[in-house]
Order: sequence, then structure tokens, then C-alpha cells
Amino acid sequence: MSYRQRFSPEIAALLADDAWLVAEEGYDPAQNLAYESIFGLASGAMGNRGSHEEGGIRKTLPANYVHGVFDQSEAFMRELCNTPDWTKLRLCHACEPISLEDGEPRDYLRVLDMRHGLLAKRYVNRAADGRETRIESLKFLSRAHPRCGMFRLCLTPLNYEGVLELENLIDAAVTNFMDMPRFRVRHLETTEVSALMPDGCYVGSKTRDFGLPLGTGARVTVRDACGADRVKSRRFRPFGELACEFLDADMTRGDTLTIEKFACICTGRDFDDPRAQVARELEALALRGFDAELAAHIARYDALWAMADVEIDGDDALQHALRFNIFQLMSTPAQDDPHTNIGAKMIHGEEYGGHAFWDTELFVLPFFDYVFPGVARNLVTYRYLLLDKALENAEKNGYRGAKYPWESADTGEEECPAWTVCPDGSCYRCYVADYEHHVTAAVAYGAQHYAHITGDEAFMDEMGLEILLQTARFWASRAVYKPEYDRYEILRVTGPDEWHEPVDNTAYTNHLARWNIDCALDRLARCRQEKPEVCARLWAALGLTEAELMEWKTCASKLYIKTRQGLIEQFDGYFDLPDAVITEWDACGMPRMPAIFREKRGMQHCILKQADVVMLMFLMPYVYDMETQRINYDYYEQRTLHRSSLSPSIHCLMGLRVGDAKRAYAYLERSAYVDIRNNQGNTREGLHAASAGGTWQCVTLGYCGMSVDDSGELVFTPHLPARWTRVRYRIVWRGTPLHITVTPGDVRIRANGALVPYRVNGESRVSEW
Amino acid sequence: MSYRQRFSPEIAALLADDAWLVAEEGYDPAQNLAYESIFGLASGAMGNRGSHEEGGIRKTLPANYVHGVFDQSEAFMRELCNTPDWTKLRLCHACEPISLEDGEPRDYLRVLDMRHGLLAKRYVNRAADGRETRIESLKFLSRAHPRCGMFRLCLTPLNYEGVLELENLIDAAVTNFMDMPRFRVRHLETTEVSALMPDGCYVGSKTRDFGLPLGTGARVTVRDACGADRVKSRRFRPFGELACEFLDADMTRGDTLTIEKFACICTGRDFDDPRAQVARELEALALRGFDAELAAHIARYDALWAMADVEIDGDDALQHALRFNIFQLMSTPAQDDPHTNIGAKMIHGEEYGGHAFWDTELFVLPFFDYVFPGVARNLVTYRYLLLDKALENAEKNGYRGAKYPWESADTGEEECPAWTVCPDGSCYRCYVADYEHHVTAAVAYGAQHYAHITGDEAFMDEMGLEILLQTARFWASRAVYKPEYDRYEILRVTGPDEWHEPVDNTAYTNHLARWNIDCALDRLARCRQEKPEVCARLWAALGLTEAELMEWKTCASKLYIKTRQGLIEQFDGYFDLPDAVITEWDACGMPRMPAIFREKRGMQHCILKQADVVMLMFLMPYVYDMETQRINYDYYEQRTLHRSSLSPSIHCLMGLRVGDAKRAYAYLERSAYVDIRNNQGNTREGLHAASAGGTWQCVTLGYCGMSVDDSGELVFTPHLPARWTRVRYRIVWRGTPLHITVTPGDVRIRANGALVPYRVNGESRVSEW
Repeated sequence: MSYRQRFSPEIAALLADDAWLVAEEGYDPAQNLAYESIFGLASGAMGNRGSHEEGGIRKTLPANYVHGVFDQSEAFMRELCNTPDWTKLRLCHACEPISLEDGEPRDYLRVLDMRHGLLAKRYVNRAADGRETRIESLKFLSRAHPRCGMFRLCLTPLNYEGVLELENLIDAAVTNFMDMPRFRVRHLETTEVSALMPDGCYVGSKTRDFGLPLGTGARVTVRDACGADRVKSRRFRPFGELACEFLDADMTRGDTLTIEKFACICTGRDFDDPRAQVARELEALALRGFDAELAAHIARYDALWAMADVEIDGDDALQHALRFNIFQLMSTPAQDDPHTNIGAKMIHGEEYGGHAFWDTELFVLPFFDYVFPGVARNLVTYRYLLLDKALENAEKNGYRGAKYPWESADTGEEECPAWTVCPDGSCYRCYVADYEHHVTAAVAYGAQHYAHITGDEAFMDEMGLEILLQTARFWASRAVYKPEYDRYEILRVTGPDEWHEPVDNTAYTNHLARWNIDCALDRLARCRQEKPEVCARLWAALGLTEAELMEWKTCASKLYIKTRQGLIEQFDGYFDLPDAVITEWDACGMPRMPAIFREKRGMQHCILKQADVVMLMFLMPYVYDMETQRINYDYYEQRTLHRSSLSPSIHCLMGLRVGDAKRAYAYLERSAYVDIRNNQGNTREGLHAASAGGTWQCVTLGYCGMSVDDSGELVFTPHLPARWTRVRYRIVWRGTPLHITVTPGDVRIRANGALVPYRVNGESRVSEW
Repeated sequence: MSYRQRFSPEIAALLADDAWLVAEEGYDPAQNLAYESIFGLASGAMGNRGSHEEGGIRKTLPANYVHGVFDQSEAFMRELCNTPDWTKLRLCHACEPISLEDGEPRDYLRVLDMRHGLLAKRYVNRAADGRETRIESLKFLSRAHPRCGMFRLCLTPLNYEGVLELENLIDAAVTNFMDMPRFRVRHLETTEVSALMPDGCYVGSKTRDFGLPLGTGARVTVRDACGADRVKSRRFRPFGELACEFLDADMTRGDTLTIEKFACICTGRDFDDPRAQVARELEALALRGFDAELAAHIARYDALWAMADVEIDGDDALQHALRFNIFQLMSTPAQDDPHTNIGAKMIHGEEYGGHAFWDTELFVLPFFDYVFPGVARNLVTYRYLLLDKALENAEKNGYRGAKYPWESADTGEEECPAWTVCPDGSCYRCYVADYEHHVTAAVAYGAQHYAHITGDEAFMDEMGLEILLQTARFWASRAVYKPEYDRYEILRVTGPDEWHEPVDNTAYTNHLARWNIDCALDRLARCRQEKPEVCARLWAALGLTEAELMEWKTCASKLYIKTRQGLIEQFDGYFDLPDAVITEWDACGMPRMPAIFREKRGMQHCILKQADVVMLMFLMPYVYDMETQRINYDYYEQRTLHRSSLSPSIHCLMGLRVGDAKRAYAYLERSAYVDIRNNQGNTREGLHAASAGGTWQCVTLGYCGMSVDDSGELVFTPHLPARWTRVRYRIVWRGTPLHITVTPGDVRIRANGALVPYRVNGESRVSEW
């Protein structure tokens, strides 16, 4: 029987076919935390982990995160706050709870319907005293009204009857890092626990540092199969920080009660009076009803998938995983809020505090540039809005221009702490923010490529060029002139490979810095010619002088680039480190550290955490001839442990480029399955945004060979793997949706009437009707 | 291996031998709630249920109750408040909790050491990942400092090591009736969650109705086997209503860490500044240390048992159960606080709101009268202190004198609600407070018998006589004169058998009322002669007149007493009800309702809930000849379902009197085992105080045949069961401890030098040296 068929006809009718479902079959509490991430839902305004509504689970980290709601308090850094838990529903019969772990769950099945953004489950609970209850539920965060989340829980007492007692709960006694006593921290203060009118619960909160208000409201209905209201009594009671509305209803043996819970979360970021707004939205939701809201929600996902789906013929498992990555990617970011970004763990877990890293620009952004340019614009605008803080950050560190923070939350300040604490309580000095400066080049790269791919020149004029100039200015001040060699060097930095820190003249950073300056000068020169008024404004605003531009030019041209071809040394002295190649892999196929290095620290061996020179070659293909790329890929691939989930997708893309199809596909799989198979064992902490974006890049930019050349033309050099017979996907090209079909050796584009030129393997084409 | 030997040598050395232990062997979560009552500890200031310190238990109702801390808020009645939970300790290693239900507990054993008032447990927890941890703990509420509770938890990582993360918690997010959503209610407001100096947590609370302040503090130490402090770091964090102190310590494989938690709870009833007092007591406790406090605590129990033990040779199981009843009885009441009483469920559960019923005077008080007369004085003084409210209560109901409430909390107002709610949500009118007036006679009976047994004439002068007079006055106003019969009747009352309500002229109530008036007049007459100044004071204070006394006399002498001998009708018309006798018993030996009555309401059949006429005969033996007692016992015993735990002990005592030794013993067992074997299935709600006191009465007043005759002499008419070879126990007789040894047909008393006269089966004796 298909997954879908195992649900009741009502829910089965809503669900997509099994190819679109991610399933958890049979209940294993040990897997709860990973599934809470995997089954996390996101609406664009918030994210909600896939904990069980009926509660009573021992191993759980329920969480609701709202874009832009950050707080530090006693934590190391400002982090995305866990906000009051609106999902909880407590079900009791005769003092006995009805929930998943109170009894034996039979025929347990939970599925994430990626096609429709729904989480559904069913099981039959058999209590110790023999009572059997069938539970079936359907949950979603509305894309139509992204501040609203809701679920329907159908409860059928199979062999008993009596009174169902029910608590509609909002639990404000939440913390971050609940299961890690050392790091556990409270980010919100509860300001109000009250009843809503005519029914429901409300919790008012505010962040502890900045006092940002937040309102969470929830209403519950209980109906029978005929839709009749079955609530016998209803009473609100605040229990400290637990808002609790008691309801009861009569249960008849074999008859299903349908419980619907509607929640709304509003913040002071958007509304002066979050409470009033919550009440209004819940009232409107009650009028529309669950089914109407569900229809509106599904319509949004129809539209999203109509743009974002990538169909692969030839590898169903990979197809499934790719869709999972796309689903989470497109669900996470705000649709119309340039003040927020995408966290390294998306909005599905607490790790990394919900901060934006270079992951956004180099891994995630290309998906949005090509598929959802509106969201991409928000993501690059986010950096522009925080440019002032980047200027401060540079100044604070003794540099000029804009130095973007390694980790960025709402204020744009550096959130990566200088000192951090290990799980064993020992403190260590964390140098990442001090040395890992390449993020600043990544921000510039993201802005430039956004404009290049989307053709959004307005962004470049209003924001992008200023980012490019200020980051170029940073690099010019960051590099030091060495008269003895007549060259500029960038000393004491860390490249993507964080195991070697700090080092001098990393190939990656030096290349990116030079590119950043060159790109800024080039863009400024074009602007000067084409839009003198834009240039004049910037010239004045930034206090540019010809002398300074000349300095940049000199710096870039004399920036120390070790070698242009042949084996590239990752940083000064890397080749002098004790060398060894990887010869062992673990059961998951992950490379193991060579035995001779196991007790060594990073600077005592040649082994890399992640793609570094290989990453550089991926980003700057034009700099190196193919032979150089092949040599370096072979060399570094044998020395890379992929301890970052950012690494496999880049190795896929580069393996593909240098003709190592077999390893490329293995890396694609590693990237695609990282969360859906919990490859790294850390999915419980959230989903890997960079892997998701990287996986999409592997398929579209890698196997389908799509890029935009310097002239702004769409070009393809496809090399599908042997088992793929076809890939179909869509992008938005200069405002026009293109339907792209890639078959072995060919690419065809439909553009619904527009005539879009493109090239395939050098041959010019025009889109079909 | 004995229970004791299964513990580590350190704990085994502290424990009594197995005869004194109540054991829970093997862990069965379904039994948690009952064991939480059975393993509840009480210090005289508070009670604490036997929940597991390390938490993580699904089926649990942890609770701490403090004598005199009542609140109503949205509940039906003022009830003993569940106060912040100071017992919690959260233990984590590498994000995984270490607790009973997180893993497989092996070799689980928990014992209540009744001899020393200790709760000890041990088990080895095997986590899903194979880590094994041995846990051993020892908990007590200090009798030496009864506001203090503490436990020691020894944790040994058997096959792993690393960092132990620990949270010292005080959870103020507590409610009453946690597992019954309909009744769940919050009684305290949290006013403060703060750090104590130099370490520890503090929670300030106040009751919601009256604002009574309450302070709860807790400190934790972590030491190794050498006693060295192993706390690496310590940090206080308030999480809303959860006070949390984080601590960590290194664990070494196979080495034991000893965690001690000390708590103190003070209220505004005793201290102006509970916080300061909590801090002081915890500081003093830290200086004394766990072992010294334990020694002081054990010394108190040595002294308590030296008075209270009853040794039965011939039935080990009954001996064990009797000690359990005595242990809980003597642990529960305050030692020096006449403003508090003993709840029907002692201080071990929430049922009946911690209220005092007639259970105190007729079931529990005799134990204290004979064994701990100081505590008995508190219990009777409690009623005197609330006499004003009883006067108000009579007036409110249109009567004169003092009408004691059916349920009494701290204010003395009637706490038994007029309307109450069933678990299914339906409301019903509860007539108990309206009609069950016999409690007022029970209060008088308790005062009179306290003075009679203890010889505390000062109490009688200062308080007791006033109670007798005001209750007599009540009865005189409660009875109505029926000129047609020239008699007084008491109409519309309920006797102990609550299934027939209201009815007219219950034998029980009429007899007790007459006794109450007679006793008051008799006592007053003696007082007039012997202590005219006392009499004059009362005369004036109560506004007594000769005319009123004459009225009482007339009322008593003309009070309708149906028959003095032969079969006694329980109330007017009882003999007209459809009649049937019990012919079926369930698997537990409990009688079943005759089939023809199963759908009937109480007034439609003859079946009784509990001893009524039988109870009357027990209390008033001199009124009835033995044949009458036998006839009535036989008659009513066949019609009583014993749906109250008050019933079996009275049937034991009366069975014994009428020579039904076999049934008497069966009733003794039913009474003795009610909680320790959870006979009635409701031990989870608290322990049965009346059964405990009734069981003690069965043994001492029943089998040993002890009583105090009208002249104030101690008399014995022993009739030990065949299997008992000897009973030894102690009482305090007019200030002198007597060692009483009862053997078949004989009683010997040692009085340590005092010459105490007593009679055995009519023969006069004097105590031995």
C-alpha cells in the first residue's frame, strides 16, 4: 500500500503521490530530533520544528523561530529565539494522556508532503489499559498568511468512549538549547498570559535585550464528523507562563473528533500592537476556516513548484532528495523582508544562532538568482542594509571600507564570538571572526553575480556598487605592501579550510580580494560612463579619489598570487607541512584522517577540513587552465576530509568539470542526502542550507552546465550522468520564466512566446514557443 | 540477598533491616503514582511525594505540601497548595539525560526505611548508546529541622567518562491536579526567581488569594569519594518560573560523584522574611553537612519509634503494614503548630484538599491521645482556634452554638463545596456540608476523649469545655420539638453512610447529639463545683443561662432514640427500603452491590456505603447490651459495601467485640493494607489517614482491649488472635511512658519506677518496675 493510501480518505485526497513524500515509518524515539528538523515547516515568516502536537514525547526539541527575532542575553551571541510553543495540545481521558509515547503506537506513519508543504501523520495508540485511539493529523504553516500556523488532529476512540479533556496550550517557558544545560538560555520575557476573545490563548513576550515585542495566539475548535461544534465547556486558565484553555467534549466509540488549532505570531518588527494583530488574524482565520486556508496554502505551493521544481529522469532517490532540498530552500526565506536572511541551518534548528554566513552568497543565492530573483534581491539587499555595520566593523579592526561579519544576525554586528565554550566547559579562543575575512569577498561576489544573473542593474546602481566599492576599499587596506618583493600580501587570514589558521597569503582569499577590487573598479568605470549621476553620488558619498582608486588598482595588480597554473599552494608554507593522503574511509564512505595525523593539530599536517583551492577554482574557472584544475582537484581531493557540509557539492561541481564523473556523482549524493539521510549525524541541529543550495547548483550549473557568460548570455555545456535521461527545470530569465529541458548533449528552452537567445556547447539557439 | 545488602556499603550501613523496609522492586512506570504516595515523606512541617529526583519520568505527580499553606483561587475549595518542586535535579552527559526512563533501568530497588524516615534507591541505567550509570540515592525531610528536605544522589559512570552537566532546579510552574485538566489549578504566584549567595536557587511565591508568602531555596554540592569539591563551574539562570543553577563536574569511569541537594521552605506564617530565613537555614545546613543532619534526623526517629512502635509477634506482614501506618501517622502532623491538622489523605496527596474531616477525631486522634499527647493537644486545639468560624457557620445556617465544617482547612470555614463537578464535567449539588452534621459531635467527642485519656484538664478548662458547650448549644438548636410525640427530632441529616441523604433521625447522629449535650452539661456541672472561676468565665463569655441549660437537658432527654436494644433502624424508614444482603465479593474480597440494586440510587435500597449503626455501637458501647451489638453487627455487616476506607477498621473492632474473630481479622487486614497494597486503587491520591489510625485502634483498643474507664483507670480486656503470641507497645499515661506487653490472656506493664494501677479482665494490677 502506498504511504498516501494508509491515511484516511480525507487526508489521502490532499496528499501528493509517494514520490513527493518524505516518510517516517514506525516510531523510533531515538530519531525524533533529526525528524524534527527534517519535518520542520517554514512559511517565510517563521519556522516550526516537526515536534508532535499531542506532546508527551521524551526526546523532543519543539521550537518556533520567527525571522528577525534575535536576542543574546547570556548566550555567546545574538541568536534566533525559540518563541512560545503554540503547537501543544494536551489530550486526556480519565486522567490518562493520549499521546504517542503514552502507550504503544501502532502503524505509525508520518510524512512530509513536499509538494504541498504539509506534515501528516497517523497511528493507533494502544494504552496500557487497552484503550485504543486512532490519531491522524495534518499540519502546515500557511504560505498564504505566513504568520499563521495550524493543524487538524482527528481523534477516534476505537474501543472506548467518555469525556475527552483537552488543553489548548501556548508554552512560553521555552529556552534555546533546552537539551544542553551548559548552553541553555532564555531569550524572551513573558509579559502577558491572557485569554483571547471570544476564545483562545494569548502570550505576550519581549526579547530580553532589545525588548522587541512578540505576540502568540492560538484558538482551538472541536467538531464531529458532521461539522457540529462538540465543545461542551471552555475555560481559560493561566498557569504562570503556560497559557491554558481547557476544553472538553464527549467521545463516542468509533466516532472521530476533529480538533483544529490555529495559531498566529506577530512581532513588533511589523506591528505596533502585536496582540491586536494576532487577534485580528485569528479571527479572520476562523472565518475562512481550515479548508479554505489549506487551499490557499496549497495554491501557493503550486506556484512555487511551478517555478522551482527540477525533474530528473533516471534517479528517483536523488530526485526525491533534490526536491527536499528545494522544498526547504524555497520555504525558508522571507518573501518581502530584506532585513532577514537565511541561517546556515535554515530556520529549522538552533545551531549557529540562525546567522547568515558566506553560505548565503556562495551556496544558496544562485538558486534564488535563477529561480526566485525577488527573494535573491532581498538577500543581497540585506547586506546593503547592514553596510554601515560592516564599515564600523572594518574601522574597529583597523581597516577601511566594509568588513562583513563572519556571522550576521539582525544588527549586522559580528556575532561570531571571540571566546567560545566547548561541551566539556573548557573555553577556547575562537579566531574565525578575526581571520576568516573571505566572507567580505563572498558578499561582493554575491552582489555582483545577483546583478549579473538577474540583470538587476537598479540594484547595482542603488546598492551593489556601493558594496563592491566598500569591500574593495577593505581589501586594499587589508593587504600590506612588501617592498622587498614589490608586492601586496594578505597575512594572517584563514581560508575556507579552517583547520589552518591563521596563515599568510591563502590562494583563495588573495584571489577573491583581487577579484573584488578589479570588479569594483570595472563596475565603477562602466558606471562612470553609463550613469554619471550614480557614479557622482557614490564618489561623493564614499569620498573616493583618483588617488585611492589608483592605490586599489596597484594593490590588485601587485597582489601576491603564488602561481597561475600547476599545483597551487593553499597558503604560504602549506607544501612544507607533513604530507599524507587519505587511504581509509568509514562505513558511510567518509574519508578518515590518516593515522599518523590523528593526534596532531591542524597546522601540523596537510589535511583539509573542506574545499579551499578547489572552491577557488570553482568560483574562478577562467583563471586556470583545465589541466591546472585537474591537478589541483586530484591533489586536494586526496587530502580533504569534508568535515563541512559545504565541501561535497563543490567537489561534485569540480569533479564534473575535470571529468571525474564517478566521484562527482558520489559527492552529489553526499550533498543531496545530508539531511534526508542524516549523513553527518547532526540533522537534529537544523538543516544544511549550503548543502541544499550546493545540491541545486550541482544539478543545474554542474550537470546541466548552465551559466551566464561575461556578455550576459545564457550558456549551457551539459554533461548529464549516464543514468539520467532528462532534466527539466525552470528559471526566470530577465523576467521571463524559461522551461529548460536538458537531455544528453542537448538543451531546449521554452519561453512561452518570448525569444530568448542561448548557447549550447557554443552553438547559438533561440527559445522555442 | 536482603534489600539492604543490595545497596552500597555506605547506604546499607544506614538502613534498617528488611522488616522495616517498604520495597519497590523492579521499575514499573504504571505504579509510579501509588508509590509517590507510599514513599511520600513528611517532616511535621511539610510533605513531599516520592517522585524521582533525577526527573525524566512520564507518569509522575511530584508535589511538596506545606502545613497551613492553603489557597482556593479557581478551585471549588481552599486546598493545600502544591508548592515549588525543589527535588528536581537534571543530569546530562553529552546532551543525553541520565534518568530512570532515559534508558533501561536494571536492578531497580527503592525502599522506604520506616525505622529512620529515609527513602533510598538504586539502579543501573543503560542508555540506548550503551552507557551505563549506577544511581543510588538517599532522601529525607529532616525531623530535626522540619522545614528542610535533602537528598544525596551518588552517580557512577560505569563504562564511560566525560563531563556531567547538572541543573539544580526549583520548578515554580506547578499546579494542583496536574493530571486532571478539568481540575488543574494554580495556587501560587511566583514573585521572585533569584540566585542565593554564595550559591543556590531561590523562588519566592505567594498564595493567590491571601498573598501568603512562601520561600523555597535549594543548594547543591558535588563531591568525589574523597569528599573533594568537584564543581568546575556554577552559574545561576532564571528561566521564567524555573530557577536553574547550572553546575558541571568531570566524571571518571567507575568513580562515584556524590551530589547533595539541600532545600528549605519557609512561609510567611512563621517568618516575616521567608527569603532571609531560607538563606539562614540553608547556610546552617551547609555548615552541619548532610551526615550530621542525617544523624540528627535519625535520632528523632529513634525517639519517635521508642514511643510509637507496636510489636506484633505472629504476623510479620501485618506487623510491617502496621508500622507503615504508624510511620506515616506520626510523621505527618506538625509538632508544635495547633493551627494545622491532619488531612484525610495525610500530607501525601491532593485529594480532599488537605482538609481535616471527622477522620481526625474519631480515627486518628486516639493514636496521638495515647502515644503523642502533645500532638493530640495541637489537634484538639486546632478546633478551638477555629471555634469562632464554627459559631459563624452555625449562625449562617440558622442555628446557635458551633457547627463545625464538614471539611476544614486553615480558616475554619466550610470548605466542602455546595456544587461540585464530576470528571465528565457534569455538575452536581453536593449535600454533604448541608446535612452531614455529625462532624460537630465528633469534634466534641475528640475533645472530651483527649482530656479523658490524657488527663489534660487544663485543656478542658481553657478550651475543651467551651467546645462542648457550643456544640451542645448547636445540637439543642438543631433538634426540633415535635409536640405530637413530645420528643425532639433531628431531621434532614446524613449519617456516616452517605448513600442515604438526607434522612430523619439517624440513630448515629441522634445518639451522638444526645451524648454531646449530656457530656457538656455533665462537664459544666463538675466545673461549677470544682473550678467555679472557670465556670464563671464561660458562663459570662457564652451568655449561658439556667434556662438554656434546662432546655438542653430537656432536649437531650427527649431526643428521639428509636430503640435501645434489638435491631436498630439506621434512620426513619430505613427498614422500609427494598432489602437484600450481599452475596458476591470481587477478586479483592470486596463486597459487590446486589445485582437488583445496581441501577438504583442510594435511597432506593438498603445497602450502606460504610459503618453507621456499627460505628455508633463502637463509640457508645455502654448504651447497648452485647446481644444488641451482635444482632446489629450481623445485620448491617451483610449490607455494607465498605466504599469508604473508614469502614473496615470499625468492623474489625466491632467484629472483635461481638466475637466474630475471623471477619475481624479480615477487616484488620483490609484496613492495614489499604495503601501499602493499594487495595482501593486510589493510593495515588494520597494515604488514608483514617485507615492508619483505625488500624492502630484495632490492634491496641481492639485486640489488646485497652481503654480508659469512666473513673479514669486504664483497663484491658485482651483477646489476641490465635496466631499472635505477643503484642508490645508503649503509651504515655499521665506523663509516664508505659511499656505494655500483651500475651494471650495477660497484660503486663512496665513504667520505669512509677506505680501505675490498671486492670486486666477486671483484675487490678500495678505496673512492674
